[in-house]
Amino acid sequence: MKNAVNREIPDELLVDGREVFQGSNYKDNTRYTKVAPSVKMRTAHIDSKVLPTIRDAIKAVGFKDGMTVSFHHHFRNGDYVVNMVMKEIVEMGFKDITIACSSLSSSHDLIADYIEDGTVIGLQTSGIRGKVGEAVSHGKLKTPAILRSHGGRVRAIEQGEVHIDVAFIGAPTADCLGNSSGKGGKSDCGVLAYADADARYADNVVIITDTLVDYPNMPASISQTDVDYVVVVDEIGNPKKIASEAARFSKDPRDLLMAEHCAKVMEATPYFKDGFSFQTGAGGPSLAVNRFLEPLLIKYGIKMSWICGGISAPSVDLLNKGLAECIVDTQDFDTVAVDSVHNNPKHFEISTSEYASPSNRSAFVNKLDYVILAALEIDTDFNVNVITGSDGVLRGAPGGHPDTAAGAKCCIVVTPLIRGRMATVCENVVTVTTPGECVDVLVTDYGIAVNPKRQDLLEALQKTKLPLKTVEELKDIAYSIVGTPDPLPFKERVVAIMEARDGTVLDVVREIDAIK
Amino acid sequence: MKNAVNREIPDELLVDGREVFQGSNYKDNTRYTKVAPSVKMRTAHIDSKVLPTIRDAIKAVGFKDGMTVSFHHHFRNGDYVVNMVMKEIVEMGFKDITIACSSLSSSHDLIADYIEDGTVIGLQTSGIRGKVGEAVSHGKLKTPAILRSHGGRVRAIEQGEVHIDVAFIGAPTADCLGNSSGKGGKSDCGVLAYADADARYADNVVIITDTLVDYPNMPASISQTDVDYVVVVDEIGNPKKIASEAARFSKDPRDLLMAEHCAKVMEATPYFKDGFSFQTGAGGPSLAVNRFLEPLLIKYGIKMSWICGGISAPSVDLLNKGLAECIVDTQDFDTVAVDSVHNNPKHFEISTSEYASPSNRSAFVNKLDYVILAALEIDTDFNVNVITGSDGVLRGAPGGHPDTAAGAKCCIVVTPLIRGRMATVCENVVTVTTPGECVDVLVTDYGIAVNPKRQDLLEALQKTKLPLKTVEELKDIAYSIVGTPDPLPFKERVVAIMEARDGTVLDVVREIDAIK
Repeated sequence: MKNAVNREIPDELLVDGREVFQGSNYKDNTRYTKVAPSVKMRTAHIDSKVLPTIRDAIKAVGFKDGMTVSFHHHFRNGDYVVNMVMKEIVEMGFKDITIACSSLSSSHDLIADYIEDGTVIGLQTSGIRGKVGEAVSHGKLKTPAILRSHGGRVRAIEQGEVHIDVAFIGAPTADCLGNSSGKGGKSDCGVLAYADADARYADNVVIITDTLVDYPNMPASISQTDVDYVVVVDEIGNPKKIASEAARFSKDPRDLLMAEHCAKVMEATPYFKDGFSFQTGAGGPSLAVNRFLEPLLIKYGIKMSWICGGISAPSVDLLNKGLAECIVDTQDFDTVAVDSVHNNPKHFEISTSEYASPSNRSAFVNKLDYVILAALEIDTDFNVNVITGSDGVLRGAPGGHPDTAAGAKCCIVVTPLIRGRMATVCENVVTVTTPGECVDVLVTDYGIAVNPKRQDLLEALQKTKLPLKTVEELKDIAYSIVGTPDPLPFKERVVAIMEARDGTVLDVVREIDAIK
Repeated sequence: MKNAVNREIPDELLVDGREVFQGSNYKDNTRYTKVAPSVKMRTAHIDSKVLPTIRDAIKAVGFKDGMTVSFHHHFRNGDYVVNMVMKEIVEMGFKDITIACSSLSSSHDLIADYIEDGTVIGLQTSGIRGKVGEAVSHGKLKTPAILRSHGGRVRAIEQGEVHIDVAFIGAPTADCLGNSSGKGGKSDCGVLAYADADARYADNVVIITDTLVDYPNMPASISQTDVDYVVVVDEIGNPKKIASEAARFSKDPRDLLMAEHCAKVMEATPYFKDGFSFQTGAGGPSLAVNRFLEPLLIKYGIKMSWICGGISAPSVDLLNKGLAECIVDTQDFDTVAVDSVHNNPKHFEISTSEYASPSNRSAFVNKLDYVILAALEIDTDFNVNVITGSDGVLRGAPGGHPDTAAGAKCCIVVTPLIRGRMATVCENVVTVTTPGECVDVLVTDYGIAVNPKRQDLLEALQKTKLPLKTVEELKDIAYSIVGTPDPLPFKERVVAIMEARDGTVLDVVREIDAIK
């Protein structure tokens, strides 16, 4: 059955109430009953929940074959927790495990082995990269992987589509009853936003920390009220890979040109006024937009009310300069962001539900004015792909892309027209991860295209000197330079389902032929 | 059927899985599945949830006859919200309403009218006083009122025994999407701990504020993710009655003697060491214990790790003097507490679930070392009554009493032996609100009794010069002074069920004959 972004979704996937994508606001204002976990109540005095080892915790929760375990990705490429826990589960002989994590990184190649040997049979994630992406793309996972946005993951948890049996939550600091924080310790990641839903919805919650602190560890991102056990290990991550050095602006003139154009697009739109809200991705051109916004804010004597999202140095800089009232933070990319969320009382941690879930009564993304996002590909319907590479292999992450695009008044995608020998602007993206109806403006190094649905923005931009083109013109330029791309050698079998944030099926990813 | 505190519970109440009380830890470590609300999901951009009037909000949530509405009691005797909302509901012609509030005060006499005329048919609360207490005690409410501790209320919500159709949450400050805080505004109450469960578990959540602030109102005690509508009114409360002037210590020599003895009891017990945790009630002798603790802390060179509970000036004073590491706060009784939770980074708001619920994986009360509590009556089994007056009429509140008593290592009840012409220490309390098994020591102005279950504490206190007596001796002294009390003129009909914190039936309150 074809969905609203013109993708053919196999009927055999449309079971258990699963529907095809029918537009971003198909489920707006609909009512549903949340699910809830099965929890062990503690009525008596308790001195400690600390267990000696991860194995003890796996035993204590009554682990069984076929269970679903969850993890967060605040430790990014520095994470040790996923591998540590999965190694123990596998060594204890458990099988048919599903991993439902907020994201996986290249530090999790070990999981590819467990997929290959059949121990891990299910994977639900936002990011998928490295050997895991290859294993899934080559059909090694027993069931189709389910790929979701950050908000979509919380929705799936809140609506019961993923039921977490055991959440293993790595925490930079924790106390003996499980009050846990992203702040402090040896593996400081700033916030624990992604783990909030896991703690609230998993039947069993195990905190894994390398820094046990005095009770009570306040303020806590994860409350003792949701924690069954605490395990103290030597190291939960590699600090250097958890928070990188301060993010710096790209020096690539092409990136800077696009960033400047993004800022000028914003300047020309009606939402560019005192108190606007703003989010930008962490990529080169997106991040550099901050640099060009600063003089504009000063020129007009305005400031932002709030900055949202994964945070790095440029956002903190705007806050510190008084050009933004506050930051609402779901992830920290660099040490500057980590320091700021520790020390600046105007820099607030929020949960991923608060950030981006479409299944609550309004996330922060629903109140965004502007978001600047990257793309691996964008097509002439403005559909964006951020999950499959030019070879058709899974190596990306929708993350907050579909959530912010859906919620913001003005979503600007910025990308060079060509990367290597690939047309970024194309006829049809390999995989739709963000529907084109949510993308308002495309900024490339060869010109700027406005989604025809946004005639209001087109009229506003026509009053500027910005180089406007149609998206078809941009695609034609791209194809004239690198040629029309050949179709990728996909087989029939669906290896991953790309869910829209409301749980409908936006696209599927099929098995790719091994490179010959 | 008789329960574990020897009370006869009518069989007709033991339906729908309701059981008699079988000991405080009967349900410890048992597993249950939480309930969850039915919520309206918002996937699209949204600018505001503000509606012009309370009536508009009642219409917008689709209000119907027979619904259950909830309120919090952070505005104490200064609350305007309960009456404002109920008046509107009644004027709109709705009937068969159940009120499920965290507590009611004497400012809610209007509700007695709605009980008398049959508009309000159910009442679930912790505190019940004034005309409402009289109306219920005289059999005017159609169904038995259900009385719970603060933790028991959260449990009942989490286990689905009370399902809130609409939570009306008064908030000193809120923004246009519903991020709400107990801090700031015209009716500053410091924290919104009691409303947390309502926001998370009600099908519809309406914020009522008199101070709309810029978005985002961070940090928020109630998140926009749980809020459907926001209504701005002129005044949500009387500030002078919300937070009183700084609580001062009693000057009554009898109170001071008892308070000194409480502190000396603590000093003699094994938990009196660096890092102990502490909670005290807001009554005269309880509060005065702080005064006698201070020199002891200094003498031994120790300090408390954390102070819990409803907070007033004496706790803030200990924090400010460095004699406590932090405060975890569920309610603010005076302006000093309100100021402190605003300004002191070591003074933290916690939810009532975190404070006291027996249905999560451990509340703060479960980690308490000491709690000092008052009593209207205490009997020779150490059972405490804090709900019915000497005339058998409802005029009290279990509050956190049963929760802290159950969780603390050492629960000390302090009360004068006699009040007016009534024996406080008696053969059988009128109503059991805290089971005697949770009470360890009784301090009166005529001597100190240790619960025989705590031989360890008895031995420790026998090494001191404190005036030890048995509880029977204390009761005999009381009766020798004021005589043996006459039985109260109760009728058969049950007008209120006193639930233990785990939801079992601890006692019932029967209709009282009108005074002749």
